[in-house]
Amino acid sequence: MAILVTGGAGYIGSHMVWALLDAGENVVVLDRLSTGFRWAIAPAARFYLGDVADAEVLKTIFIENDIEAIIHFAGSAVVPASVADPLSYYDNNSGKTRALMSAAIAAGVRHFVFSSTAAVYGPQKGSEPVKETAPLNPENPYGQSKLMTEFMLRDAAAAYDFDYVALRYFNVAGADPHGRAGQSTSGATHLIKVACEAALGRRDSVHVYGIDYPTHDGTGVRDYIHVTDLAQAHLKALQHLRRGKGSLVANCGYGSGYSVLDVLNMVTRLHGHAFKIHMAPRRPGDAASVVADASLAHRMLEWTPKYDSLETIVRSALDWELELITRRVEDLHEMRRALAAASF
Amino acid sequence: MAILVTGGAGYIGSHMVWALLDAGENVVVLDRLSTGFRWAIAPAARFYLGDVADAEVLKTIFIENDIEAIIHFAGSAVVPASVADPLSYYDNNSGKTRALMSAAIAAGVRHFVFSSTAAVYGPQKGSEPVKETAPLNPENPYGQSKLMTEFMLRDAAAAYDFDYVALRYFNVAGADPHGRAGQSTSGATHLIKVACEAALGRRDSVHVYGIDYPTHDGTGVRDYIHVTDLAQAHLKALQHLRRGKGSLVANCGYGSGYSVLDVLNMVTRLHGHAFKIHMAPRRPGDAASVVADASLAHRMLEWTPKYDSLETIVRSALDWELELITRRVEDLHEMRRALAAASF
Repeated sequence: MAILVTGGAGYIGSHMVWALLDAGENVVVLDRLSTGFRWAIAPAARFYLGDVADAEVLKTIFIENDIEAIIHFAGSAVVPASVADPLSYYDNNSGKTRALMSAAIAAGVRHFVFSSTAAVYGPQKGSEPVKETAPLNPENPYGQSKLMTEFMLRDAAAAYDFDYVALRYFNVAGADPHGRAGQSTSGATHLIKVACEAALGRRDSVHVYGIDYPTHDGTGVRDYIHVTDLAQAHLKALQHLRRGKGSLVANCGYGSGYSVLDVLNMVTRLHGHAFKIHMAPRRPGDAASVVADASLAHRMLEWTPKYDSLETIVRSALDWELELITRRVEDLHEMRRALAAASF
Repeated sequence: MAILVTGGAGYIGSHMVWALLDAGENVVVLDRLSTGFRWAIAPAARFYLGDVADAEVLKTIFIENDIEAIIHFAGSAVVPASVADPLSYYDNNSGKTRALMSAAIAAGVRHFVFSSTAAVYGPQKGSEPVKETAPLNPENPYGQSKLMTEFMLRDAAAAYDFDYVALRYFNVAGADPHGRAGQSTSGATHLIKVACEAALGRRDSVHVYGIDYPTHDGTGVRDYIHVTDLAQAHLKALQHLRRGKGSLVANCGYGSGYSVLDVLNMVTRLHGHAFKIHMAPRRPGDAASVVADASLAHRMLEWTPKYDSLETIVRSALDWELELITRRVEDLHEMRRALAAASF
C-alpha cells in the first residue's frame, strides 16, 4: 500500500513526503513541476510527472501502485493571480480536484486529505480565534475555489464509499528542521520568506502594510504554523481516516499569532543583519488579526504541534534560505529542466 | 452576428430558440442530445452536435459563426440524481460551464446569460417571497453546482472583458402557446408534467407529498413560471447586456404561487378526466411555500410576464402532451437517433 501525494514537489508537499517516509510509509508523488522542483522530492518516493487531472497518468499510477489514500496539495495559491485570472484557479483548484476525486473513487481509493485554507472564511472583524463554524464567505477566487472543493468532498463522502479530511491552513511557514526541505518557489509573497530573503540581501526591503491596526504594535497579526507541524497534522488525518473515524474539516494553526514587526524583529535578531523596512498604508481586505481556533484538530486528530515558537519557525526558514544559496539555485533550476525533459 | 444557445434541444432551450427566431435573431444551437431531441430544435437554427466543454466543437462554432452572446442552458437538473452522483453534477454544471466560459472569453464573446435556479437559496422557513439577497445555502449538489457557476461568472466579470445575467428560475412549466415546443424529456418529476401525463392515462397516479403544510389547502405552494415568459426574460437579459447595463443576478418567477391541489384541480378541470391521487407524507427538505420576489427582473430587465395564469400554463402543457402523442414519440426517437448518427 502507498500514499499518493500530489504536489509533492512543492513547499508543503515536499515536507509531507519526508514526514510520510519518516513514518515508514510508501510514497508516490504526482507533480507537473509547474512551480515545484524535481530535486525537492525525497529520493525514496516514486515520482510521476504529470497533471492531477490527466486520466492516463492517474490510470498508470493506480495500476502500478496500490494507492490507499491521496494527500492532495497540487493547486494554485497566489491570491492576486486568482483575482486576475479566476477561471484558471477554478480549473486548477476545483475542476482538476474533481477529476482526481472521480478517478480515485473509480479506482477504489477511499481516503482523501485535502489542503484547504483559512481563505474560505469571510473577512474577520475582531481578533477572536476563527472556528470552523465561522461564515464561509471567501474574499477572493482562490478561497472560493478551495471552498468549492470542500463542498465537492462533502457531497462525495455522502454519495460514495469515500471519506476525507480537509485541513484549513493558516499561515504556513518555516522549513524542515533537518534541512531536507523548505520553501523553494520564487516570487513568494509570504512575509517570513520575504523577510529572510531581505535579511540575506536578496531583496532590497520589506513592505509593512498598515501600522495603525488595533494590535499590540499596530501591525497585522497572523497565525504562523510550522510546515513540519502541518505535515504531522496530515499524518494524523490519515490515521483518523484509516481508523474509520469519518470525514472532518479542521483548522490548522496554533491559536495565537505574531505581528509583522514581531516577525521582522525575529529575523533581524537571528540573522544579525538589518534590512530596510517600508511603512505603507493598509491593503484593502487585510484584517487586523487572523488566528485559528484549532481545538477541533487537537481533539479529533490528537494533533500536538512541536515547533510552535516564532524563533523555531524563523530559524528553520533562515537555515533553508542559506542552504538554498549553497545549493546554487540556478544550477538546480537547470537540473530541474533536464530532469523534467527526461520525463520521469 | 448570432446567439449561441447551449442545450437548445432541451425543454427551456427549445423555447428560447423559438423566442430568438421570433425576435429576428440568428441562432446557433450546441447540444449533445443526451436528454434533448433533434426534432425539438427549430429548423431555422444552425445545429452543432457536441458537448459544451469540447474545445474542438467550440472552436469550429466560433470560427464558422460570429457569436455575439451565449445563452447557456445545457446541464443536469435532477435533484435526486445530483445527490446520488454529485461529482457528475459538478462536472456537467460547473466544470463544463467553466470550460465554455474560458473558450468564449478567449474567442471574444462578451455576453453570457446563465440558467441558474432557486435551488441556490437555503431552505425557506416562511412564505415570504425570496429576494436575491436571501442566504445562499443550497440543500443539494444540484443547487450547489449552479451556485458555483454563479461565483465563477461573478469573478470572471470582474477580471475579463465579459458580463453576464444569471436568472434564478423558480418552477418552470407550460409549453409554447403556438404548440411548437414543450417539455419532451421522459422521466420528468415536475408536478405539472406528471399531472398532465396522469390525466392522459400515461401514468397510474400522482403522489401528493404533505397535506399538512401551513398553506391555504395544506399542500405545498410553488411559483410556477410559464416557459415562454421565461424565454422572454432571457431576451430581455440579452438586451440588457447589449445596452452595456452590466452584470446582474435576478429571480424569475411570478411572485405568487399555486398549491399542489390547485394544480391537480386545474388539470382535471381542463382535461375532464379524473386520475388517482396518493396522499403521502412530507418529503424531507420540502418547504411549505417557495415564491420569488421578482421585482429586480421587472425593474432592471423591464420584463413583463404575459402567461401568468395557472390556466394558461396547464392548458399549454396539456396541449403539448396531446401533440406529443400525435407525433408518436417513439417514431421521433427513431428520427432523433438517425439524425444524431448523421452528425449534424
